[in-house]
Amino acid sequence: MAEACDVGLVGLAVMGQNLSLNISSKGFKIGVYNRTYERTEETVKRAEEEKLCIYGYKTLEELIQNLKKPKKIILLIKAGPAVDENINNILKYFEKGDIIIDGGNEWYLNSERRIKLCSEKNVEYLAMGVSGGEAGARYGCSFMPGGSKYAYDCIKDILEKCSAKVGTSPCVTYIGPGSSGNYVKMVHNGIEYGDMQLISESYFIMKHILKYDNKKLSQVFKKWNEGILNSYLIEITANILDKTDELTGDNNYIVDMILDIAGAKGTGKWTMLEAIERGIPCPTICAALDARNISTFKQLRTKADEHFATTMKMNCTTEKLENLENDLLNALYCCKIISYTQGLFLLKQVSQEMKWNLNLGEISRIWRGGCIIRAVFLDRITNAYKNDEKLELLFMANEFSDEMKNKLPSLRKIVNLATQCDIPIPAFSASLAYFQMVTSKNLPLNLVQAQRDYFGSHTYQRTDREGSFHTLWD
Amino acid sequence: MAEACDVGLVGLAVMGQNLSLNISSKGFKIGVYNRTYERTEETVKRAEEEKLCIYGYKTLEELIQNLKKPKKIILLIKAGPAVDENINNILKYFEKGDIIIDGGNEWYLNSERRIKLCSEKNVEYLAMGVSGGEAGARYGCSFMPGGSKYAYDCIKDILEKCSAKVGTSPCVTYIGPGSSGNYVKMVHNGIEYGDMQLISESYFIMKHILKYDNKKLSQVFKKWNEGILNSYLIEITANILDKTDELTGDNNYIVDMILDIAGAKGTGKWTMLEAIERGIPCPTICAALDARNISTFKQLRTKADEHFATTMKMNCTTEKLENLENDLLNALYCCKIISYTQGLFLLKQVSQEMKWNLNLGEISRIWRGGCIIRAVFLDRITNAYKNDEKLELLFMANEFSDEMKNKLPSLRKIVNLATQCDIPIPAFSASLAYFQMVTSKNLPLNLVQAQRDYFGSHTYQRTDREGSFHTLWD
Repeated sequence: MAEACDVGLVGLAVMGQNLSLNISSKGFKIGVYNRTYERTEETVKRAEEEKLCIYGYKTLEELIQNLKKPKKIILLIKAGPAVDENINNILKYFEKGDIIIDGGNEWYLNSERRIKLCSEKNVEYLAMGVSGGEAGARYGCSFMPGGSKYAYDCIKDILEKCSAKVGTSPCVTYIGPGSSGNYVKMVHNGIEYGDMQLISESYFIMKHILKYDNKKLSQVFKKWNEGILNSYLIEITANILDKTDELTGDNNYIVDMILDIAGAKGTGKWTMLEAIERGIPCPTICAALDARNISTFKQLRTKADEHFATTMKMNCTTEKLENLENDLLNALYCCKIISYTQGLFLLKQVSQEMKWNLNLGEISRIWRGGCIIRAVFLDRITNAYKNDEKLELLFMANEFSDEMKNKLPSLRKIVNLATQCDIPIPAFSASLAYFQMVTSKNLPLNLVQAQRDYFGSHTYQRTDREGSFHTLWD
Repeated sequence: MAEACDVGLVGLAVMGQNLSLNISSKGFKIGVYNRTYERTEETVKRAEEEKLCIYGYKTLEELIQNLKKPKKIILLIKAGPAVDENINNILKYFEKGDIIIDGGNEWYLNSERRIKLCSEKNVEYLAMGVSGGEAGARYGCSFMPGGSKYAYDCIKDILEKCSAKVGTSPCVTYIGPGSSGNYVKMVHNGIEYGDMQLISESYFIMKHILKYDNKKLSQVFKKWNEGILNSYLIEITANILDKTDELTGDNNYIVDMILDIAGAKGTGKWTMLEAIERGIPCPTICAALDARNISTFKQLRTKADEHFATTMKMNCTTEKLENLENDLLNALYCCKIISYTQGLFLLKQVSQEMKWNLNLGEISRIWRGGCIIRAVFLDRITNAYKNDEKLELLFMANEFSDEMKNKLPSLRKIVNLATQCDIPIPAFSASLAYFQMVTSKNLPLNLVQAQRDYFGSHTYQRTDREGSFHTLWD
């Protein structure tokens, strides 16, 4: 029998296989188990091919018997009931101080429930967000572990070695107690939705207003990736736009062959359910979620498009296109800052409500590498929170506010131009409206409150004195 | 002892008192009960003053003993646990075929639970939305009863007589099974949020761009109330803007003394939670909810306003203001149609998912009078569904689509002008973006799906063939 393993991993789909190889490659002894043994064999074989050694077990019990104390198992399986089932099985064999780490995209309240269950058996629980996709899992991702601090300290060495590095800093930190790791990962994904939608709107503006072809579009994103927007999503956008279609030949670009229906796995929806539940507006993320939902009504859209064809589409008078490419860059960057302001404001709120004491600067730091939203500009977010840890609105930080001021005219210009040309820009316009609302001392909600008092006697506050007032309107 | 009562009512706050008087005034014998007896005495006294007769009881048991069979009790108490408590008490005395009617703004899943509980005891349950506020409860409101059809038939006569009338039609209909009455009332309120926000944005545009004073603003809304926008909310807006402040004297208008912080009681939030849960975009309603939430951050807004003061506020070059008032009327009307399209699309979706078989034409008809969103244009919505009961998007109906086409240029113009002048118009711009998205055969979501396939191997569909595809991007 082999020497006992440092860590066990259950669930050998794409993420699990790659993370196993990653852990093994860092010199840790890892044992794995999967419900169907073929996957386990496949993983062991992949390890051999890469001159690594992964120990595959036919049963969960066997895996657990071969773990060093405190026993540590990472779960990388489909979130939901399957996790409960596996935890119940693991708890049959685990003893006080052993550690379960769930690396799935789990709904945070499920983790809260499991933390309670495990604590009754003195088993330590870590609910850990993992971002970076297949490549990240294999070569370095961003880990967002929350829950038992003891568990974190036990697995810290493995996580740091397997995480992406920015300079010498590993993209992992202890997020906070409870299910905070799930929550932070959820908001990370919500922000990712926003980024992707903003990029896609930029793409459509250049395609339809500037009439750029895919080659030119790719070049623009490549250029943008060398400046303030330097990020993974901009980089892959440039690569996507440059890719020809293998099925129909080199005259077609793949992007034009892909149907405009976007899927979703639920974390964007969760982010919005939370934002709405807690009363924290995240309109950029919401616009991105709505856009994916609307995209699925392809048939209805086609019918509606034909129905309204007479008035719509490209009313664009291409007068003031001068410098538009640069305006668009500025507008996109503004919206990105506004969108991150929303997501981080949600995290600030939940941190207070749940007493998680989240360090938003550290969270921005570990998003700097490995994960899907990795971007150079996250360094500046980290600095913004270092300089003012009580920062409420990201765009008010010194790091960003001058830029916001300078680039806002571009954002206004882009919103106007796209509106005039009937290019749908829900995320751009929602971002601008959010900024305008939040930076307005006076809003017309006095009228709304007057209406509420009129029909429902809901009372109102006054500008000139304390208290709550009601008017006899009739 | 008095002859047995036709109906009982529990809960004598504003709504309960007024509905009791209404029921009594229609010739029904009504018995009432309230947790604190003072309220009951107050109600009985109010009835006497109006030469009506309401029977007040000191205990719930007494009330129930004095009801005709099948016994019918209307609950008008705070939604949530208090309703559960009262139902449990009522069930001690109720027999097979007796009827509980909950008239509160209840979360629909609570009603589903109670329906199950009551059906175990063979008690019939009606979950009924009631809209119209204080005045509606007293003189005629809109009832949205759902649940037991038998219960509806037993109480139909009372509801029809107490409802508002449009012509001779009572604003009540059997909505559908289960908690559909709660759900329809919830969406009604969501739509109400949208209407109020759109009106408040229109008010701000005229106030800041056209520099209208309150008197002039009131006149505009009064004029609008005589045309296609004729509705209760436009009417009260005109009245509000014309009202002087009693506390500081006739030189001040009350609207200017009301703080721009709007409250909310939760139905707008519920509507959005449902819209997001079911994947049905309702961006106009969401913008209205967000605006109320943002309004509560008054201190933060003030700080942010001062911070960005240099670049923001009224960049408006008042060039093209000609005909602006009429453009605004058109834009507001467009947005209203778009917002109702969203709300009714949500109802269509839930009707399918819950098998409620909602009649959207009938629902629009009973919103025509009594309730807060009552408006002449609801007649046309009713007609639209009469002409095409499978109608998916309201704005595609013959009744509206030509108008949409004609008025869209005004909406674009208003969005552009407000954007340029830094007047926040989240609901206007979200409505326009929604319309543009839903009427676009092609959206840039092909790029989003390409990105998802790039980093997560999520696959994509193609424009030229069936199936699901993955590209090796690197």
